Amino acid sequence: MIMNPLTSSLAEMAFKNKRVLVTGGLGFVGSNLARRLADAGAHLMLVDSLIPDYGGNLFNLDGYEQRVTVNIADVRDEYSMDYLVQGQDLLFNLAGQTSHLDSMRDPYTDLDINVRSQLSILEACRKKNPGIKIVYASTRQFYGKPDYLPVDERHLLHPTDVNGINKMAGEWYHIVYNNVYGIRATSLRLTNTYGPRMRVKDARQTFLGIWLKQVLSGEPIVVYGDGQQLRDFNYVDDVVEALLIAALDARADGQVYNLGSAEPPISLNDLAQLLIETNTAGEYRRIPFPHDRKAIDIGDYYADCSKIRRELGWIPQVPLAEGLRRSLDYFRRHLPYYR
Amino acid sequence: MIMNPLTSSLAEMAFKNKRVLVTGGLGFVGSNLARRLADAGAHLMLVDSLIPDYGGNLFNLDGYEQRVTVNIADVRDEYSMDYLVQGQDLLFNLAGQTSHLDSMRDPYTDLDINVRSQLSILEACRKKNPGIKIVYASTRQFYGKPDYLPVDERHLLHPTDVNGINKMAGEWYHIVYNNVYGIRATSLRLTNTYGPRMRVKDARQTFLGIWLKQVLSGEPIVVYGDGQQLRDFNYVDDVVEALLIAALDARADGQVYNLGSAEPPISLNDLAQLLIETNTAGEYRRIPFPHDRKAIDIGDYYADCSKIRRELGWIPQVPLAEGLRRSLDYFRRHLPYYR
Repeated sequence: MIMNPLTSSLAEMAFKNKRVLVTGGLGFVGSNLARRLADAGAHLMLVDSLIPDYGGNLFNLDGYEQRVTVNIADVRDEYSMDYLVQGQDLLFNLAGQTSHLDSMRDPYTDLDINVRSQLSILEACRKKNPGIKIVYASTRQFYGKPDYLPVDERHLLHPTDVNGINKMAGEWYHIVYNNVYGIRATSLRLTNTYGPRMRVKDARQTFLGIWLKQVLSGEPIVVYGDGQQLRDFNYVDDVVEALLIAALDARADGQVYNLGSAEPPISLNDLAQLLIETNTAGEYRRIPFPHDRKAIDIGDYYADCSKIRRELGWIPQVPLAEGLRRSLDYFRRHLPYYR
Repeated sequence: MIMNPLTSSLAEMAFKNKRVLVTGGLGFVGSNLARRLADAGAHLMLVDSLIPDYGGNLFNLDGYEQRVTVNIADVRDEYSMDYLVQGQDLLFNLAGQTSHLDSMRDPYTDLDINVRSQLSILEACRKKNPGIKIVYASTRQFYGKPDYLPVDERHLLHPTDVNGINKMAGEWYHIVYNNVYGIRATSLRLTNTYGPRMRVKDARQTFLGIWLKQVLSGEPIVVYGDGQQLRDFNYVDDVVEALLIAALDARADGQVYNLGSAEPPISLNDLAQLLIETNTAGEYRRIPFPHDRKAIDIGDYYADCSKIRRELGWIPQVPLAEGLRRSLDYFRRHLPYYR
C-alpha cells in the first residue's frame, strides 16, 4: 500500500466527514471498503439484504458495529433506494448477484438484481441526488472467452452466461447516466478478488473462496479440468484502493477500468500448490469439468490494467503469496462465522 | 430481389408448411415478413400487443387476414409465450420497444420489453420447444457513436441510451442460449429500415417514417442539426430477405450480422432532397437539435455488412430511390390507416 496516491494522509483526508452509501455493504468488498472508510472518518450507510446465498455477513463488521450505520434493504426496493441516496456524497454500488451458475438456473433474479435494480438506483440518483458520485463494481466476466491476452478495455464484450450479460447492462446504465444526465459514474471491472471477509462456503464469489475453506478444513482442493487455466487475482485491499481512487478522481467520470494483477497470471494448479505451501498443509485433486460449468467457462483470462495505472495511478500492492497468507490467517481465526 | 439465394423456387419451398411464430407480427417488419411467408405457404402465428405507441397495425395484414392467425398478446406475458412457442419450427422475434427517447423517459418499460421478455421467450423455448430456430431483430443502435466507419461486427459496443443497452442484452441472451443450451439463434443488427407498413405518425421507428408523412401531407420535412449526418438505409423487403436467409442457414446459428446498404451512405440533407424529388413536391428545413435527442445522437453511421454477404449471400437489392418511390406509392394510397 505504499505507492498508491491515496496513501498520503492528504488524500485520505478527502473522505473525512463524507457521507457515503455502500450497497452490498455487508458483503466481501463492501465491508472491507466500509472499514477503510470508517477509519478515514467517513459517515457510512451500508445497505444490504443479507440474502443467504449472497456475500452479506454481519460478522464482516466485527469491531466496527458502532462506527457505521446498517440499513437492511434490498436494492430491488425502489422506494428504499429513493430515500437512501438522498444527502449522500458518494455511492459505492457493490450489491450484486455474483454466481454464474445461479444466473443460469434463475435468470430472472439475476436480471432483477443486476439490471433492474441498477436502473432504479440510477433513477433514484437522477431524481433525488444528481450531484452524487458513483463507483460501480463491475466484472471481467462479460469479456467472455478472450480473443487475446492480456484483455484490455478495448476487448469486445461477448458474455458467456446470463450473469455476464446482466452485469454488462448494469455497467452501461451507469455510463449512459453519466453521459446523458451528468450523474458522475465510474465502473471498475473486477477480476478474481480474494481476501478476508469473502464468501468461502461455496464458489459463488470465486472458486478461491471455497479453496480457502477446503484447505483450512483439511479437505482436498478440487480443481476442475486440467488445471492449466490461467487467472489473475487481486487482494481485496487493492480493490478497495481502486474504488477510493476512482471516487476521488474526476478523470474517472464516465470511464471503465480493468483491475488486474501486477504479477504474471497463474495456473490453477500452481495456485493450488501455492495455497497449500502457504498453509503448510493440504492437497489438491483434479476432476473433470462439470458440464454446467464447462458450458460457461471462459478459458484463460488475465487483464491488462495499464489504463487505470496510467490514468489514475493505481498499482496493486499485495503479492499473491502475501495475500493468501493474510487470507489464511483471517479465516483460520474466523472460519466458523463463514460456514 | 433477383440475386439473393432465396429467389430460387427451391429455397422458397423451404418455408412451405413450416410453422412460424412472429412476435411483433402486426408491426412494420413483422407484417411484411408474414405476408412473404404466407405467400411461400408457411403457417403463420402472429403475436402482437397493439400497444398504441408501437408499430402494430391491423391494416398491415390487409388482404392477408384469412391467411394468417393473429394472437393478441404481450411478449411480457410469460404464460402466453410458454404456450405459443410450442410446436413452432421457426420464431422470428421482432417484438420490441424501438424509441430511443421513450427508453430514456420510461426505462422500466423498455427494460421489460427488450430484456425481460426476451429472457422469458428464450426460457419458453428452452422449456417447451428447444428444437426451434430463432431469428432476432437486433439493432445497430448499441454501437453508439462509431469509433470508425463503416462499422463491422468487431466494433465495440458502447450504447448511448437505455434502449441500446437493453437491445444489447436482449441480443446476448439469444447468443448465450444458443451457445449454452443449443437453442439455435441468429441476431441481425438492423440499420434504418423503411418501406410500406412502417410507423409514420412519429419518429418512434426511424425519422424517415415521419418524413414520409410530412412530405405526403404537404408539410416541410424537419431535419435536426446541420443535416450532414450520414446514414444507411434498408428497404424492408431486403430486411425480410435477410431474416429468411438467416432462418434457413445453419451457418448463422449463434452469429450476429450487420445489415446495411449496398449503396454509399447518404446525408440527411441529401435524403430529404431525394425524398422531395421522388415525391415531385415538398420542402425541408433544418432546426437545431432538440437537447434530449442530441444527448443520445450517434453522429455519422453506416454499416459494413460484408459478413452476411460473405457467409449467407445476402445482398440488398432495392436502391434507395426505388425504395422511397415504393414507400411513397404505398402511403399515398393508405396514409389514413397510419395516422
